Amino acid sequence: MTFLLKTLRIIKYKLSYRHVRYMSSETFDFNTFVAKNEPMPTYSPGTKERNLLDACVASYECRIRDIPIVIGDEEIRTEGERYQVCPFDHERKVARYYYAPKPVIQKAIVSCLSGRKAWERTPLAKRAEIFLRAADLMSNKYRYDLLATTMLGQGKNIWQAEIDAGAEIIDFLRFDVQFAREITEYKPISPNPEELNSIKYRGCEGFWAAITPFNFTAIGGHLPMAPALMGNVCLWKPSDTALLSNYLVYEIYREAGLPAGVINFVPADGPVFGDTITASPDLAGINFTGSVKTFSHLWKQVGANIETYKSYPRLIGECGGKNMHFVHSSAKIDQVFYGAVQSGFEYGGQKCSALSRMYIPESMWPTVKENLVQIHKQLIVGTPLYGETFMSAVIDEKAFARCMSYLDYARKSPNVSVVAGGRCND
Amino acid sequence: MTFLLKTLRIIKYKLSYRHVRYMSSETFDFNTFVAKNEPMPTYSPGTKERNLLDACVASYECRIRDIPIVIGDEEIRTEGERYQVCPFDHERKVARYYYAPKPVIQKAIVSCLSGRKAWERTPLAKRAEIFLRAADLMSNKYRYDLLATTMLGQGKNIWQAEIDAGAEIIDFLRFDVQFAREITEYKPISPNPEELNSIKYRGCEGFWAAITPFNFTAIGGHLPMAPALMGNVCLWKPSDTALLSNYLVYEIYREAGLPAGVINFVPADGPVFGDTITASPDLAGINFTGSVKTFSHLWKQVGANIETYKSYPRLIGECGGKNMHFVHSSAKIDQVFYGAVQSGFEYGGQKCSALSRMYIPESMWPTVKENLVQIHKQLIVGTPLYGETFMSAVIDEKAFARCMSYLDYARKSPNVSVVAGGRCND
Repeated sequence: MTFLLKTLRIIKYKLSYRHVRYMSSETFDFNTFVAKNEPMPTYSPGTKERNLLDACVASYECRIRDIPIVIGDEEIRTEGERYQVCPFDHERKVARYYYAPKPVIQKAIVSCLSGRKAWERTPLAKRAEIFLRAADLMSNKYRYDLLATTMLGQGKNIWQAEIDAGAEIIDFLRFDVQFAREITEYKPISPNPEELNSIKYRGCEGFWAAITPFNFTAIGGHLPMAPALMGNVCLWKPSDTALLSNYLVYEIYREAGLPAGVINFVPADGPVFGDTITASPDLAGINFTGSVKTFSHLWKQVGANIETYKSYPRLIGECGGKNMHFVHSSAKIDQVFYGAVQSGFEYGGQKCSALSRMYIPESMWPTVKENLVQIHKQLIVGTPLYGETFMSAVIDEKAFARCMSYLDYARKSPNVSVVAGGRCND
Repeated sequence: MTFLLKTLRIIKYKLSYRHVRYMSSETFDFNTFVAKNEPMPTYSPGTKERNLLDACVASYECRIRDIPIVIGDEEIRTEGERYQVCPFDHERKVARYYYAPKPVIQKAIVSCLSGRKAWERTPLAKRAEIFLRAADLMSNKYRYDLLATTMLGQGKNIWQAEIDAGAEIIDFLRFDVQFAREITEYKPISPNPEELNSIKYRGCEGFWAAITPFNFTAIGGHLPMAPALMGNVCLWKPSDTALLSNYLVYEIYREAGLPAGVINFVPADGPVFGDTITASPDLAGINFTGSVKTFSHLWKQVGANIETYKSYPRLIGECGGKNMHFVHSSAKIDQVFYGAVQSGFEYGGQKCSALSRMYIPESMWPTVKENLVQIHKQLIVGTPLYGETFMSAVIDEKAFARCMSYLDYARKSPNVSVVAGGRCND
C-alpha cells in the first residue's frame, strides 16, 4: 500500500481501538443490551482477511445473480429483464433483475398488511434478536460477500466497501437495538400504588415504504430495517445500481429469522413506485434517502392525497448536503489537504458528506495548493478490485454527465483556474 | 359538594399522593433535574384555596381585558375589534382582541427571525430555567387567575380548570425540561482518546407556528413553548375562544424572563394565518392541535408549496379521537357507569379523550342503564362559577349546533332510544 493511502486511512480511522470481535446475539439480554462499534480489519496485502476477500471477489467472476421481486415468500419475475453492471466495466453484468409494475406493488401492499398484526405482536426483544443475529451473520459469514457485492456493483474500493457494507451496516443494526431499548424503557410515573401508568410502542397502522440510495449498502439495509424493528411491515425499493449487495442484505435478514412478508423486496421504476405507494390509503410512512427533487415530489403527492389516508403518513427524508471546509490559519496544514482529498474524492465524491467547497486563508493557499497537486498525482483511479485504487468510476451515465458538466463549467468560467485534473473518459 | 361529584373526583384523581408543593426553579441544576407532578388542591368549600379562587373569579366582574397582538415588544391593535364572551353567558364579554391580517403576520415572521440566532445561542439550561420559573409563577402567583380565566372564557368548572390550567400546564413545562435534558444528554461513543465525538441540538432554521385549541389552556401554552425551549422562535395563534387565559400564559412567560420576540402572540383568522405561514419560505414547523380538516388543509398547502421552503417543514398534529369503552362482564360495575359519565360528559365532552361509544355486555345493561339514568338526574348543568356544577355550556354556536344535530339524529333514528336527556337550549 502506498504511503499516501496509509496516511489517509490513519488520519480518518484510528483502527487500534477496534479490534475485539464479538457476537451480539449470543447471550443476548434486551434489557441491558449496549452496542459496541464493529471492529474493522485492515485488509493490508497478505493478511488473512485480504486473501479471503480477494477470493470472494474472484468467486463472482462470470456470475450473474438472478434477483427476483420477493413478496412474502413468493419470488416474482416480470417481463423485461434488466441488468446491473459494474460501474467501472460496463460490459460486465453482475445482476439480472425485474421491475415490479403497479399491480405487483399493490399486491405487495395487500400481502404485507395481512402479516402486520402477527409481526407487531412479536415482542420487541424477539424482533431485536433477529436483527442482532443478522448483524452477526454480516460480521462473519457474509462480510466478504457484502464487501465484494458492494465493490463490484457500486464501484467502492476495499476500504470504502468495508466502512459501509462491513462496519456501518452492522453498527446500524446493533445501535438501533440499543436505541429501541432506550426509547421503550421510559415508564410514566405511577405515584399511587393502586394505579399503574404504562406506555406501549405499537407499529403503525399501515405499511412503510423504504426508498434507498445506491451509495451506501448500509443505508439500503437500514431504511427498511428500522421500521421493521419497531413492529412495522415494509416495502423496500432498492436502487437499480445497488441490487446485488442489497438483495444479499435482504437474504441475510431472512436467514437471521425475519418472517416472510415483514420486509418485501420490490425493485421498481421510481415514479411508478412513488405513485403507487402514495395512492394507497394504507401508507403509514416513507423512509427515504435520495435527492431533494424526488423527496419533494413524494411530499407533494402525499399532500395532494392527504384526505385519502387512514392515518397521517410519516415522511422521513435524508437528502444529501453540500459539505464545506472553512479553514482557520491556525489549522494543522497537513490535515487541511489530506482532509480535503479524502472528503472531496473518496468514492468519487458520491457521499452526502463529500467536500464541495473549501475556504482557505490566502496565506495558506500556496502550500495547500502545492500539496493538493502532489497528492493528486499519486491518486490511483481505476478498478476498485485493485487494492491500491483510491477511486473508481462514478455510478452511471447520469452521474458521469453531471460531473462532465461541472468540469465544462469550470473550464469556461473566467474566474476559475483548473489546478489539477479536469479530464475524464467514459 | 354532592356525594356524586366527590365520588367522580375520587375515582379519577387520587389526590392523596399530590400534596407537597415545590418550586422547580429554585436551586435548579439542569443536569440532574427530575420533574414531579404538580400537587392539586381540592377546592372544597371553605378551604383557603377555594376562598382565594372565588375572590379571584369575582375580581374579573365588570372587566373586559384588552388583548393586543404582540410582535417582539410591540403591541398592535388592528381595526375591527372582536370580543370573547362567556360560553355560559353570551352577554358577558371577557376580552377584546384584534385579528392580525396578512401583513401583520408577515411582519411577525420577519421580526422573530431577526432574534432567532440570539435565542438559539442561549444555553438550553438557561432556556429551561425561564420555563421552570414560569411553572413556579403558575403554581403560585397566577394559579387562581389561570383557573378563573379558563372558567370564565372557556366554561370549565373548578375541577376541570384545575386539572388543565393548574396541574397540566405546570407539568408540561417541568416535564418538557426533564425530557429536553434526557434527549440532549446522549453522547456519541468516543473510543479513541485523541478524538471527541459530540452532538449538538440546534434550533430549526426558520420559524415555528403554534396553532392552539380552545379546550385546553395547557395545550395553548404548550405548543409554542416546546419549540421555544429547544431554541426556536415561534408565532402563536391562539383560539378565539381561549384568548383570556392564553394571553395570561403569554404574559407569564414574559414575566419569567422569556425575551421579547421568541414567542409572538398573533390572534388571527384561521385561514388567513394558515395561508400566510405556509406561503413563507422560512416555515420550519407547525405545532398543531385541532380538527382533522384543518390539519389536512395545512398539510396539503405545505405539500403544494414544498419547493419554496428553505428546509422541509415539520408537521406535528394532534387531531382528537373517538374514545370508546369496551366493557367486559368481569368489570367492577360502579366504575363502568361512573367512568362513562366522567369520560363522556365532563367539560361537555369537549376533550379528545371524551367517550363517544360504549359496548356493554347485555347482562350488565339493565344495571348500567338504571345507574346512568340516576346519575344523570343528579348532574348539575349551569354556570361553572357555581362550585357544584358538573358541566356547563359548550364553547360556541357551532359546537351547540353540532350537538343539536346529534340529538336530532338520535331521535329520528329507528334503532336508537333516548334513555335520558336529549334536550338543550341556547
